[in-house]
Amino acid sequence: MGNSFGHLFRITTWGESHGGGVGVVIDGCPSRIPLQESDIQAELDRRRPGQSSIVTPRAEADRCQILSGVFEGQTLGTPISVLVLNEDAQPETYAEMAQTFRPSHADFTYEAKYGIRNWQGGGRASARETIGRVAAGAVARKVLQRMFPQFEAVAYVTHVYQTTAFVDSDAVTREQVEANEIRCPDAAAAQQMIAAIAQARAEGDSLGGIIECVLRGLPPGLGEPVFDKLEADLAKAMLSIPATKGFEIGSGFAATQMRGSEHNDEFEMRDEQVRTKTNRSGGVQGGISNGENIVFRVAFKPTATIARPQQTVTLTGEETTLAARGRHDPCVLPRAVPIVEAMATLVLCDHALRQRGTAL
Amino acid sequence: MGNSFGHLFRITTWGESHGGGVGVVIDGCPSRIPLQESDIQAELDRRRPGQSSIVTPRAEADRCQILSGVFEGQTLGTPISVLVLNEDAQPETYAEMAQTFRPSHADFTYEAKYGIRNWQGGGRASARETIGRVAAGAVARKVLQRMFPQFEAVAYVTHVYQTTAFVDSDAVTREQVEANEIRCPDAAAAQQMIAAIAQARAEGDSLGGIIECVLRGLPPGLGEPVFDKLEADLAKAMLSIPATKGFEIGSGFAATQMRGSEHNDEFEMRDEQVRTKTNRSGGVQGGISNGENIVFRVAFKPTATIARPQQTVTLTGEETTLAARGRHDPCVLPRAVPIVEAMATLVLCDHALRQRGTAL
Amino acid sequence: MGNSFGHLFRITTWGESHGGGVGVVIDGCPSRIPLQESDIQAELDRRRPGQSSIVTPRAEADRCQILSGVFEGQTLGTPISVLVLNEDAQPETYAEMAQTFRPSHADFTYEAKYGIRNWQGGGRASARETIGRVAAGAVARKVLQRMFPQFEAVAYVTHVYQTTAFVDSDAVTREQVEANEIRCPDAAAAQQMIAAIAQARAEGDSLGGIIECVLRGLPPGLGEPVFDKLEADLAKAMLSIPATKGFEIGSGFAATQMRGSEHNDEFEMRDEQVRTKTNRSGGVQGGISNGENIVFRVAFKPTATIARPQQTVTLTGEETTLAARGRHDPCVLPRAVPIVEAMATLVLCDHALRQRGTAL
Amino acid sequence: MGNSFGHLFRITTWGESHGGGVGVVIDGCPSRIPLQESDIQAELDRRRPGQSSIVTPRAEADRCQILSGVFEGQTLGTPISVLVLNEDAQPETYAEMAQTFRPSHADFTYEAKYGIRNWQGGGRASARETIGRVAAGAVARKVLQRMFPQFEAVAYVTHVYQTTAFVDSDAVTREQVEANEIRCPDAAAAQQMIAAIAQARAEGDSLGGIIECVLRGLPPGLGEPVFDKLEADLAKAMLSIPATKGFEIGSGFAATQMRGSEHNDEFEMRDEQVRTKTNRSGGVQGGISNGENIVFRVAFKPTATIARPQQTVTLTGEETTLAARGRHDPCVLPRAVPIVEAMATLVLCDHALRQRGTAL
Repeated sequence: MGNSFGHLFRITTWGESHGGGVGVVIDGCPSRIPLQESDIQAELDRRRPGQSSIVTPRAEADRCQILSGVFEGQTLGTPISVLVLNEDAQPETYAEMAQTFRPSHADFTYEAKYGIRNWQGGGRASARETIGRVAAGAVARKVLQRMFPQFEAVAYVTHVYQTTAFVDSDAVTREQVEANEIRCPDAAAAQQMIAAIAQARAEGDSLGGIIECVLRGLPPGLGEPVFDKLEADLAKAMLSIPATKGFEIGSGFAATQMRGSEHNDEFEMRDEQVRTKTNRSGGVQGGISNGENIVFRVAFKPTATIARPQQTVTLTGEETTLAARGRHDPCVLPRAVPIVEAMATLVLCDHALRQRGTAL
Repeated sequence: MGNSFGHLFRITTWGESHGGGVGVVIDGCPSRIPLQESDIQAELDRRRPGQSSIVTPRAEADRCQILSGVFEGQTLGTPISVLVLNEDAQPETYAEMAQTFRPSHADFTYEAKYGIRNWQGGGRASARETIGRVAAGAVARKVLQRMFPQFEAVAYVTHVYQTTAFVDSDAVTREQVEANEIRCPDAAAAQQMIAAIAQARAEGDSLGGIIECVLRGLPPGLGEPVFDKLEADLAKAMLSIPATKGFEIGSGFAATQMRGSEHNDEFEMRDEQVRTKTNRSGGVQGGISNGENIVFRVAFKPTATIARPQQTVTLTGEETTLAARGRHDPCVLPRAVPIVEAMATLVLCDHALRQRGTAL
Repeated sequence: MGNSFGHLFRITTWGESHGGGVGVVIDGCPSRIPLQESDIQAELDRRRPGQSSIVTPRAEADRCQILSGVFEGQTLGTPISVLVLNEDAQPETYAEMAQTFRPSHADFTYEAKYGIRNWQGGGRASARETIGRVAAGAVARKVLQRMFPQFEAVAYVTHVYQTTAFVDSDAVTREQVEANEIRCPDAAAAQQMIAAIAQARAEGDSLGGIIECVLRGLPPGLGEPVFDKLEADLAKAMLSIPATKGFEIGSGFAATQMRGSEHNDEFEMRDEQVRTKTNRSGGVQGGISNGENIVFRVAFKPTATIARPQQTVTLTGEETTLAARGRHDPCVLPRAVPIVEAMATLVLCDHALRQRGTAL
Repeated sequence: MGNSFGHLFRITTWGESHGGGVGVVIDGCPSRIPLQESDIQAELDRRRPGQSSIVTPRAEADRCQILSGVFEGQTLGTPISVLVLNEDAQPETYAEMAQTFRPSHADFTYEAKYGIRNWQGGGRASARETIGRVAAGAVARKVLQRMFPQFEAVAYVTHVYQTTAFVDSDAVTREQVEANEIRCPDAAAAQQMIAAIAQARAEGDSLGGIIECVLRGLPPGLGEPVFDKLEADLAKAMLSIPATKGFEIGSGFAATQMRGSEHNDEFEMRDEQVRTKTNRSGGVQGGISNGENIVFRVAFKPTATIARPQQTVTLTGEETTLAARGRHDPCVLPRAVPIVEAMATLVLCDHALRQRGTAL
């Protein structure tokens, strides 16, 4: 269970990292949205392995096929099935994993839950599972842009290990993000980050960091109060991404050290609209968008797979030592940027349709 | 929409802060669980207003009635309807709110979404909405303890404004938490927090802080990979609580400044079980519990309602100034402790039943 | 579980026939729909006991209270909680049922499922559970009429035991239906039905029959292909009503004895719209409404509670004889008419909002 | 929307009759169930076209591939993705359908709903959509048989046009069903049915009929009272199958002409179990299984596609005449038998897991 996400715009992902392939079924997509495989492929290319020197060299083209739901270049309103076949399997690389639990991976917990697991490369817990999310996010973006032409989601790396970037969330563009391989629009910080990652890799180690995401061009009124608050659904979406450890919106954890008089966003009239002077709320109040930019941050842990030897135990309960030999990312953040954007876009697309459905 | 939570153990809350009352319907509760109104009342008493000098003096007994689903002291397996009538309404206090949007409240966003709102005290966005959650959490706790007798959820305040408490999440008890009115088990820090809150109140201001929660006594195997990861559902649950701005599990945002070799939890055999030597994962790996304590933290902003005058606008778009006159909490944290516990317990109860349903 | 119905317009009912009360929470109702308790009460009065000589004399006013979701006579967009307290409990009447399973009732199956049941009058399996459905249906009707002012749902009795009525589904009005106590618009047939019911009651027996329902004033395009076909959701809605044994739409079972050339509905242009010449499809093709009247029928079995002695067994497995002593309906059909209308209206309201949400 | 079915054992189907392919994603399947493509293929072969002289000659092998969720012959607990590529497309056969609405097909309603449709062979409304259901049903059967080794679902044709078969639902076997091409275990009736179908085909016409299904070997206690009654979910499942017009369980519509004293199922002790002497309830009381065989019937209309010319209208609103030229079934019943079994098995599998999840 738990492989579906969304209420009206609902996706279901499937697939292990090794095996036939991975994919997604998108249900609830409005009809007559122009859609081609290249729309999806462009986003998949941003998350695929092998794009730069700081990500895993696993060389997969991740070529997508749309198997249903599109006819003569337009969506039909029926489920859109997207398939990406697995190609570059080297299951022998993972043979050791059949018997030994990798520290801070999901090997042990899958075994505890299911009594079986596809040990060839992480199975369903592999980052490869996110291909379906990115594919669906590309479709959701087209739907949202139909409804709100100014809509855009821009995510970017703001922290890697001890390096902090300075980015203006109101102004940052996707072009700036794509300007370097770490996807950090602060060029100086980006160089430090890249160097730190290269060094960590050389040392058989890994690094984590923070991705910030801004959603612009959305109207007030999206999000459902109580359990399906916009920030609640965004938090769920982000913590469902592998390797995440935290989420904050607007002022986030920093709010805990502020006084109400410092933190509140006063209202004013601007361009004949109710606007806030500041945006510590992060674009959401009471679970509902207020028309300001939605800004949130996601914490990623350092990649669990490292080349250094670590203590662990085997399937049969014997203590042993393990050092990773498979290909892996020393830092997941650059490839996680399109995943964060995709998940945020899926949340907003679903809420936009929900609001449309019930606002008479 | 969005007023239901859970998949097998599913709750639906309803009610505005002013009006007939508030309540919850609990669907999916197993039968033959001993349950009395006093089980629920004990938890409601922990979140009700007027319990101490640092919370709102609004004096409501919040007396619960079980209207269905229980027979001769046991659950029937049918929906449990819990009702709390509203009592201490002073709607005249709120007359000004009918015309003016309170900064960092949900007045504007509700108006934008629905074109109408119950302006008497916050309506559905009031913290009063959480009564149903706490009531349901008390039931979920009984179900979980039937399945896992060692289960307990203990939440406590670790930060208020600039004060940090030191608490051992493995050892802290509910008795220690309940020992003072701020619900911080570090007595020295608690005194500072209480003093800081008293001062903020005197200054017409408010404070935020952090609540940590530990879940103990759960087996490995709970949680669904991919979208319904345990940490994802916990994050959603927490960000659905009013006034929250962030969530982190285990190492959380601190993980972003660690190396993989520092962060990974090595495995060892302990008491003939697979255990981790450290718990930076926070009890969850790949979305599934690993049998260690589940530890997470939630950031709360300072209360939006403050007595100081703030700039804002009216329903008709005129700029004005507003100073709160209603009764309110200068710091929501002590009353939020049982809410955090309740929401965490609901998440785990639902996942425990889901796991039970599909593990043959 | 299983106490919620609908996807966007979603209701959750609760309550046993004896105990605190029964009720419903309606989530997803659009805001600013005028709504008063009298709107709901009018429908509840049509299903309450004691309205005529051919229904149970149990004398309950079934007075509804709206506890939330309505403010100054308009819906807020938040959950609408409707409560009806139980009044006329005579649990001593049912003492025998604590030990003995009534034939063709749910006593045995509840016991098998839950290991416990509220034996005072049928508990959750009582027809009293449908109060929440009828209340919610009254709200759904107002929503649908806001969207489609010509919308109306008219149900009526077409068969009781061996009497068949002739009714023109295109023309029948609610006034005609309400003209007699059996709710059959064919006056001559109605008299025979009433006489048959009176005789069955005198003989300690009971009768079943068929209710037909027509939905008018709906546009083409409602209903989701595949699993949530309009006829599928209607079938589920109807078979969820107590005492139902069958459902058919349009030509129904009679279609099985027709040839395609006899059965197909040819298209023509009428008033510049695509219309069918006949309506054997019952207003739905491929799961989606085609703009014709939606017509379906529901089979009700004879009331299981009869005064004649029947063989049965006890909780402890001893064979015994039981004759009903409680008050009951000799024929459920007249009181089921508003329930059928309510459930059909709920299905259409939900699908209308779903279509609105996804049709850009 | 509406392409998913089930709550714990949840399937999502996708695919048009022409285009890349059709398939299903099965979420919530327990782990460690032995599963091979041949298990699924055996059921697909029973529903595929071209198996006999009385079904459509469209010659597709409908070869399935399992793309995920199975490892070394066992289910992983992760989503099982099953793909069947489309092969024998003759889209030119359907060119006329691009402009003209086929009577009693879904062409017009899809156009009304979506403003676009894949007119090549029925698109999503094609019977080809049911491939995913049958594939999923084969998996559900393995799960149910793991839980209840005596479980079996047997469906068979009891009526075609004016021919009625006599079948003992307690004794009928799948072998008897498969003994002839119409899947009617009454050999004499089967011959008449086959002859009638052959004649209808020769006349350019089509026939409908009734399929009965019996589920054996299930315990009491399955099914959720109120909205998710077993008969309600079965009714929805059946009315979601293309070409269905009605559903009845147990006594069904015949119950409407019986008295309570004739209809009630008296209880007795048999083999130390509570059993009913008769089974007019059809194995379900109050929405919950009572341990008797579950027996229901489904009405299928005559195939809408017929070779005779019919009046209809075009996309642009001009009246015209249409005679089908594509390959089609003169009677859908033989191929619908495995679909009915599959849908019933899916309903029961889901309810069995739900009951397992909440019965402590």
